[in-house]
Amino acid sequence: MDSLISTLRTALGDDSVLTGERLAERARSFWDPRPLEGRALLLPRDTAAVSAALRLCHEARQPVIPLGGGTNIANATASGENDVLISLERMRGIGPVDLAQQTVTVEAGAPLETVQEHAAAAGLKVPVDLGARGSCTIGGMIACNAGGNQVLRYGMTRDMVLGLEAVLADGTVLNGLTPYLKNNTGYDLKQWFVGSEGTLGIVTRAVLHLYPAPRSRHTALLAVDDFAAIAPLLLRLRARLGGLLTSFEGMWQSFYELNSGEHATALPIFDAAPPWSVLLEIEGQDAEADGALFEQTLAEVWEAGGLADAVIAGSEADRLAMWAIREGCEAETKLYARTDQFDISLAMDAMLPCTEAIRSALTELALDSDLHVFGHLGDGNLHLVVGHRRGEIDSAHVKQLVYQRVAEWRGSVSAEHGIGLDKKAYLPLSRSTAEIQAMRAIKQALDPHGILNPGKIFDL
Amino acid sequence: MDSLISTLRTALGDDSVLTGERLAERARSFWDPRPLEGRALLLPRDTAAVSAALRLCHEARQPVIPLGGGTNIANATASGENDVLISLERMRGIGPVDLAQQTVTVEAGAPLETVQEHAAAAGLKVPVDLGARGSCTIGGMIACNAGGNQVLRYGMTRDMVLGLEAVLADGTVLNGLTPYLKNNTGYDLKQWFVGSEGTLGIVTRAVLHLYPAPRSRHTALLAVDDFAAIAPLLLRLRARLGGLLTSFEGMWQSFYELNSGEHATALPIFDAAPPWSVLLEIEGQDAEADGALFEQTLAEVWEAGGLADAVIAGSEADRLAMWAIREGCEAETKLYARTDQFDISLAMDAMLPCTEAIRSALTELALDSDLHVFGHLGDGNLHLVVGHRRGEIDSAHVKQLVYQRVAEWRGSVSAEHGIGLDKKAYLPLSRSTAEIQAMRAIKQALDPHGILNPGKIFDL
Repeated sequence: MDSLISTLRTALGDDSVLTGERLAERARSFWDPRPLEGRALLLPRDTAAVSAALRLCHEARQPVIPLGGGTNIANATASGENDVLISLERMRGIGPVDLAQQTVTVEAGAPLETVQEHAAAAGLKVPVDLGARGSCTIGGMIACNAGGNQVLRYGMTRDMVLGLEAVLADGTVLNGLTPYLKNNTGYDLKQWFVGSEGTLGIVTRAVLHLYPAPRSRHTALLAVDDFAAIAPLLLRLRARLGGLLTSFEGMWQSFYELNSGEHATALPIFDAAPPWSVLLEIEGQDAEADGALFEQTLAEVWEAGGLADAVIAGSEADRLAMWAIREGCEAETKLYARTDQFDISLAMDAMLPCTEAIRSALTELALDSDLHVFGHLGDGNLHLVVGHRRGEIDSAHVKQLVYQRVAEWRGSVSAEHGIGLDKKAYLPLSRSTAEIQAMRAIKQALDPHGILNPGKIFDL
Repeated sequence: MDSLISTLRTALGDDSVLTGERLAERARSFWDPRPLEGRALLLPRDTAAVSAALRLCHEARQPVIPLGGGTNIANATASGENDVLISLERMRGIGPVDLAQQTVTVEAGAPLETVQEHAAAAGLKVPVDLGARGSCTIGGMIACNAGGNQVLRYGMTRDMVLGLEAVLADGTVLNGLTPYLKNNTGYDLKQWFVGSEGTLGIVTRAVLHLYPAPRSRHTALLAVDDFAAIAPLLLRLRARLGGLLTSFEGMWQSFYELNSGEHATALPIFDAAPPWSVLLEIEGQDAEADGALFEQTLAEVWEAGGLADAVIAGSEADRLAMWAIREGCEAETKLYARTDQFDISLAMDAMLPCTEAIRSALTELALDSDLHVFGHLGDGNLHLVVGHRRGEIDSAHVKQLVYQRVAEWRGSVSAEHGIGLDKKAYLPLSRSTAEIQAMRAIKQALDPHGILNPGKIFDL
């Protein structure tokens, strides 16, 4: 008999502790349909239950894996048969929107899309948006400091968290659910938990900062022949469009071809795939005035030179057609047996030489694999897709090749996806030994038995 | 003979270690002209010297007080005769502005104003600005997470720090000088040091995020009769003016009267002091378009009702006249023997009842003291001035009275000034025992001998 599990049943209630088939009938994640592994899956109904569960696991030195919406792509919630899992799926309460403060307090299990709908009903918007909006939870987004397509304007998840309630490994509840923009009262505890991937505490509730919902949106696709034209273009657009600029997304030629070619659902917009395409979007409150500013600004940047072509979306259908190229993934699925995906930050002037070095190294290996580059150019964040026609290519080899070059160009091995299990081996390419030691010291201070999501980010 | 001091002299060089008269000829701070107290004042020239000094002090269990520009107003750099002091005044180097990234890397001893001038020469601006700009240093601003008059738009100092180099108590250098907007590679170490008031490490260098310098500015002063009109006004302005709104500053009637009355240098703008005045400012890139938007928006809010009067600044002189009322401090100096100053955050709907409760309590005490309220209304941050006509009033009593009411209204006892020594007794009004224990655990992990700025924020 398993005494910890029965103690947990007593503390949380029988129906909050799933084991055996009830646990194994769930998938491991959105990406991995195999049966979930673990000793038990806890489904607490409130913060007190999370606290009780962690206290018992802490006393029993029981490893605990916090689950979010299952869409993490760094394998940050991988579990084994000896782990206890906690999902906050029953904690999805959303408080009333506070219009005066432009805030909302939510439980961590609330899916992003539900919170977005709630904010929209009050005329406001959640500043972070992701493709996984229907599945990902606020708690998971906070644990991973999620990014998305509008970081340029609104920042990452860290920037929208005004207050946070988290439970430490020993069950201590830190209630910091304050709605203040400014609160210099000692260490800003919430900052420790944002982006810590569930290794320092379990986020149970948060106060989110909302923004006025946009009433107008203007989009354009620009073609650029010379990469050197992109930095001045961004600078000019930032200065001219001020706070309205939400997206400055880039697509390298082969990515554009892939996602507007024969295997794609999207159609090409330019006659020929330009060396670089930039998807530009602004959001504002005044369709007419914003539209005039947008057209005038594009006319100015056209005059300034550096653009080979430019198309302004004249309708929502036009706009969606532009985003379809940027967000398409059908072609890579059809064309390749397997892909390796990367999420890196690079300085603007390192982007071209670094990606070219990666392309050359891949070509030399003659793997018959392709490199496609796209991403949040305005944030310095590129996504790389290495598509393998042959399924047997060794991923570890490809990853080493890519990350080594990212490190040579002083890039970051993870811009927005986090480290999890998958990038742990490459963390030392972006962080010094001293930095990783400091992370360990904090982990040790807040989770002395190392029960929370052990083995993720770094080993103790 | 003092062996630590001679070891420090050997390590840093004789001219980098001031003792005796050389130390005592300096003032304690901008506010306290008495001779500085300490065993030695270290003036390192680079990060390696800071590291060497801290390693030696750590081994000797020597308390170390980091000094910035001396303008802190929470007594966060108070020292005693047994303390070693470190000033980074010789580390004021400023790197070239990176236009593509809109960043600059600076040494922590650089004064804000120097960095502002450097950024301006490249057409950019430092997003945080304070009255103390000529004296305060980037390192001090980071240690205190300084705010200012444009937080509404640009955030606090935390938000402009992209990368950070800091030295831990034992001399370990954490070099995180990355320029990336997005960098999810393990714990975001820089967040620990921002706002930690020199208790977790000494900041030596930082990468700052710059913004396009504004090319236009529009200002107005609004009069409001009913406090309940202010929240919808702010909401409407935020939605309408989007990213352009930089300031939404509030002045309660008595503050406006004080600073535009017989003892003030500023002149009144309205015929009679309104119950509340709001100073509104936008910054943009297009004087004509922004001006039209500003006037149109003010016309709209006027139509919507709630405003008693509104004056748009027609010239820079008009604008300065409005800010002179908001920023004046001559009258309080002339009128009062002494003042107690507060820096609190409150939810919008708590501002009126809480400040009225404070006013009533003060009146009941019959101290013949006045309460004046103003501040960064758009940030939820009020400053309170209690002016005492009689110099012998007990400050501790007044502070308890004010902070108790702030706590009753769930406010924060420090919005932007920090805790230092002066507010340590009141920290438990804003932070739970569990939160303060968590702060202690982190402090213990990063500074096991407790040498860095001991006794500030909390006691170990």
